[in-house]
Amino acid sequence: MSKLRVHAFTLSLDGFGAGPRQDIDNPLGVGGRTLHEWAFATRTFQKMFGGDGGDTGIDEDFAAAGFANIGAWIIGRNMFGPIRGPWADEAWKGWWGDEPPYHVPVFVLTHHPRATLTMAGGTTFHFVTDGIEPALRRAVEAANGKDVRLGGGVATIQQYLRAGLVDEMHLAIAPVLLGSGERLLEGLDAVQLGYRCIRHVATPNVTHVVLAKSA
Amino acid sequence: MSKLRVHAFTLSLDGFGAGPRQDIDNPLGVGGRTLHEWAFATRTFQKMFGGDGGDTGIDEDFAAAGFANIGAWIIGRNMFGPIRGPWADEAWKGWWGDEPPYHVPVFVLTHHPRATLTMAGGTTFHFVTDGIEPALRRAVEAANGKDVRLGGGVATIQQYLRAGLVDEMHLAIAPVLLGSGERLLEGLDAVQLGYRCIRHVATPNVTHVVLAKSA
Repeated sequence: MSKLRVHAFTLSLDGFGAGPRQDIDNPLGVGGRTLHEWAFATRTFQKMFGGDGGDTGIDEDFAAAGFANIGAWIIGRNMFGPIRGPWADEAWKGWWGDEPPYHVPVFVLTHHPRATLTMAGGTTFHFVTDGIEPALRRAVEAANGKDVRLGGGVATIQQYLRAGLVDEMHLAIAPVLLGSGERLLEGLDAVQLGYRCIRHVATPNVTHVVLAKSA
Repeated sequence: MSKLRVHAFTLSLDGFGAGPRQDIDNPLGVGGRTLHEWAFATRTFQKMFGGDGGDTGIDEDFAAAGFANIGAWIIGRNMFGPIRGPWADEAWKGWWGDEPPYHVPVFVLTHHPRATLTMAGGTTFHFVTDGIEPALRRAVEAANGKDVRLGGGVATIQQYLRAGLVDEMHLAIAPVLLGSGERLLEGLDAVQLGYRCIRHVATPNVTHVVLAKSA
């Protein structure tokens, strides 16, 4: 059975998974980038963007685990880009340039149809307009026995959590305050939804926790 | 200048500072006690309740720091007891028995007047009915040059945070989900209020963070 897994989703001390006012200059919202410094420092992320350095250790282990045995991704439309409403044209191809770091099919949740986009390096963006469950079915099929990674953002993960469809969620808690933005665990009861913390380990950069559905 | 300091205030991963449905059997709300296991294990807390064991190390250092140079406390009424509304009689004297672990004047915020209560070991409970600022003035005066510790609960700390009166706040983030209860940092913007994280260090039990007003 394919699992639906969240990895390396970073929260601020006040619970925000992204800063406010996302736009073309602030893909993670204002201040959101500081959340992710631990991840950018890892070897996995450095390699993803063409570097050959990067830290190893616990942070790296968590970053790398997020790419192990993943056969497809699901992301929300705002994680794909800053455009809202109907797609005016086909010009926007994601934040990541010609060769996005997915290398597998990526299912983008949107209310507005758009033709599939084939990128270099094995990434294909499929635009899914009929909801989170059809997107998951298609992603599981595309993953062909591997797991599906649920990327974000906050609203997308919340929808899958409420539907009880997330099997495992690795969160990183960064030592910063954002003050406002989107809170991942607001407006839902993680205990009632069946989650508990099955692992926690901290590094000088962040505290890693893994939440999973109770058996 | 006396500072107003919060110490060892523990939050769940989902941001709750206490569980739901506080009552006589659940002073910290249902499930709230699991938050504080790190603190109960420390030497400071063991000594407080008559034991002579307890862990030392980083958790203990944070627990002990919460009692250093403290000349008075302020606590909310729900931290003093489970009774709501007017005081029916003088029978309830706090959760802590005849000799509470404060050993200094404690100012209890309440809407309902009650005579000062003198306990063994130097603790005096003063019931303050005219609001958070008068309570702070009286506590500062009683502290006589030392600092004032703000105990809790969530609603009390939030009032002082919104008024910009908290100088420093040590939070501990425990690896548990509570699902519901009272969130400390919901409904307020900690960044706009001038706070930032000035220290963070994790142990196998919890992640400690210190928030302070920007200089």
